[in-house]
Amino acid sequence: MSVKTIVYKGDNVVLIDQTKLPLKEEYAVCEDYKAVGRAIKNMLIRGAPAIGVAAAMGVALGAQSIAEESFEKFECELNKVCAHLAGTRPTAVNLFWAINRMKKVLEANKDKSIKQIKKILKDESKRVLKEDIEICKQIGANGADLIDDGDNVLTHCNAGALATGGYGTALGVIRGAHGQKKKIHVYADETRPFLQGARLTAWELMKDKIPVTLITDNMAGYFMQQGKIDKIVVGADRIASNGDAANKIGTYSLAVLAKEHKIPFYVAAPVSTFDFDIKNGDGIPIEERHEKEVSHVFGKRVAPIDVMICNPAFDVTPNKYITAIITEKGVIENPNRKKILELLK
Amino acid sequence: MSVKTIVYKGDNVVLIDQTKLPLKEEYAVCEDYKAVGRAIKNMLIRGAPAIGVAAAMGVALGAQSIAEESFEKFECELNKVCAHLAGTRPTAVNLFWAINRMKKVLEANKDKSIKQIKKILKDESKRVLKEDIEICKQIGANGADLIDDGDNVLTHCNAGALATGGYGTALGVIRGAHGQKKKIHVYADETRPFLQGARLTAWELMKDKIPVTLITDNMAGYFMQQGKIDKIVVGADRIASNGDAANKIGTYSLAVLAKEHKIPFYVAAPVSTFDFDIKNGDGIPIEERHEKEVSHVFGKRVAPIDVMICNPAFDVTPNKYITAIITEKGVIENPNRKKILELLK
Repeated sequence: MSVKTIVYKGDNVVLIDQTKLPLKEEYAVCEDYKAVGRAIKNMLIRGAPAIGVAAAMGVALGAQSIAEESFEKFECELNKVCAHLAGTRPTAVNLFWAINRMKKVLEANKDKSIKQIKKILKDESKRVLKEDIEICKQIGANGADLIDDGDNVLTHCNAGALATGGYGTALGVIRGAHGQKKKIHVYADETRPFLQGARLTAWELMKDKIPVTLITDNMAGYFMQQGKIDKIVVGADRIASNGDAANKIGTYSLAVLAKEHKIPFYVAAPVSTFDFDIKNGDGIPIEERHEKEVSHVFGKRVAPIDVMICNPAFDVTPNKYITAIITEKGVIENPNRKKILELLK
Repeated sequence: MSVKTIVYKGDNVVLIDQTKLPLKEEYAVCEDYKAVGRAIKNMLIRGAPAIGVAAAMGVALGAQSIAEESFEKFECELNKVCAHLAGTRPTAVNLFWAINRMKKVLEANKDKSIKQIKKILKDESKRVLKEDIEICKQIGANGADLIDDGDNVLTHCNAGALATGGYGTALGVIRGAHGQKKKIHVYADETRPFLQGARLTAWELMKDKIPVTLITDNMAGYFMQQGKIDKIVVGADRIASNGDAANKIGTYSLAVLAKEHKIPFYVAAPVSTFDFDIKNGDGIPIEERHEKEVSHVFGKRVAPIDVMICNPAFDVTPNKYITAIITEKGVIENPNRKKILELLK
């Protein structure tokens, strides 16, 4: 896709403001790490891998403005930057993965001058972006073989170029299959409350001329019942070591429906999405977001004033519902702890 | 509920404009049958039983303006009125049931003067409304026993006072249980694309001080997984003679999720919702509505221009997923053709 999700440009981090899409293509210029933090928290940038890239760039941006005194002072200040960014969103593990990667780079270069370290951190954050795109392309290549010519593929939320450095995870698989000249048609769930499917997935697939039909979330079961869905591919925000996968709210329902209709259900995610510290999905924190996302659509109220609202942003799909997890290192069918550790660790 | 869904008032049919709720309480005054037809088609009034009442009143209203010449001429003109109203929406069978009822009344009174017939039709349409409310209360009484004290009940769309002459079918069951002093909490799916759950169900339950929490459609599976849903109660737009039930899009998905989580799934509907002419759900026509309902929310565009959109307004839940159908004549557990015919015919 021609649009860049996020870039480190001069002294700023520039990202496409995804809250404005598809009506406006506007770019947000983050001049400091707090602006990057706000962009993550307010979902100007979202999608687990993209959040990882943004966090790495946020750490690098924060590093640039720290006074060049002692390493200890620098490290202390940088830890504050990291803690601030780590507090933006709880579920996507890529956020913490990226911050830890930056911390390790700092540690490995503690003998260098602060000036050198600043450059190294900046370069590292750019490398996170570059690698993310390469990883997505590899996920796409690995997953493309699972998609057949003529398939109707359902996806949920946006696990596309906009959710990553570029190319996408779930949409990476679709781009991979499309690149193999397979005729693919995508059903995109609109994905309430934030409408990432309607606003982002439909938009970026149309940009790439991949046929897409937009449906509301509650139509997915109907189209499965009608035999109109051949495969389901989604992304993930955090995968436990046994393969239980957290993803955008509504994913679990699709997985249950897929099982009932014997439709393959695939999760596409980079290795950085795995959290080997937790045994299963019960350990994944689920972010509860502001009720206004539900009560309002694009600033327009749709629900009664003062109605009680729940707004969990994610749910967890147990591994038993997942046909395979597609990573850059390979495809893990019927995922479980043993298979995951064998391939990835 | 204090608000009246629809009334025949003087020479007009007056109905609350449900497209404006919950932001505005506005009433539409229909001065002729075509205005009633538009109100049904554009969903100012919706919900299978309410559509039935509106259709009966539309026929009666149409009758009033026909010239008082011969019975044959009158019947011919009234048939045109009926055909017009029958063409407004295809799925809810109550529309056709109500029109047929009015035609039968006409037939039974063909020996009367046209003037008398006009009054008889008007009175009959008022009777349809009155009976509908009584039927809903009986559905509520029959269904209330299936709801336990402390239950969290999920409902979809609006099968409430606003979907009927008053009181409601699915919400009639909830009102019945609430009236028995059972402590009930309702989860209301917002029900995209038309948002009947957010706009109507939440609104009318709040008016009656029945605790309600609004969620997006794709959250329902998550709350089932968390053990937070004890029962599901929905309405129906048409039920085939074997118990397959058409209802608002998304109902089928809930039924599959209910099965997976072993949660009782109830359909509440008056006998007029049964279509004994069709064997099973395959015979139920599914209305495809305008794509603008999906691409826009309250007039605000949320999807890319020119994106392909599907907008089926209903789906069919096969009888095997339905724990019981609750009617005014009794509760039919594990519904099938034999049990349904035994109780209802």
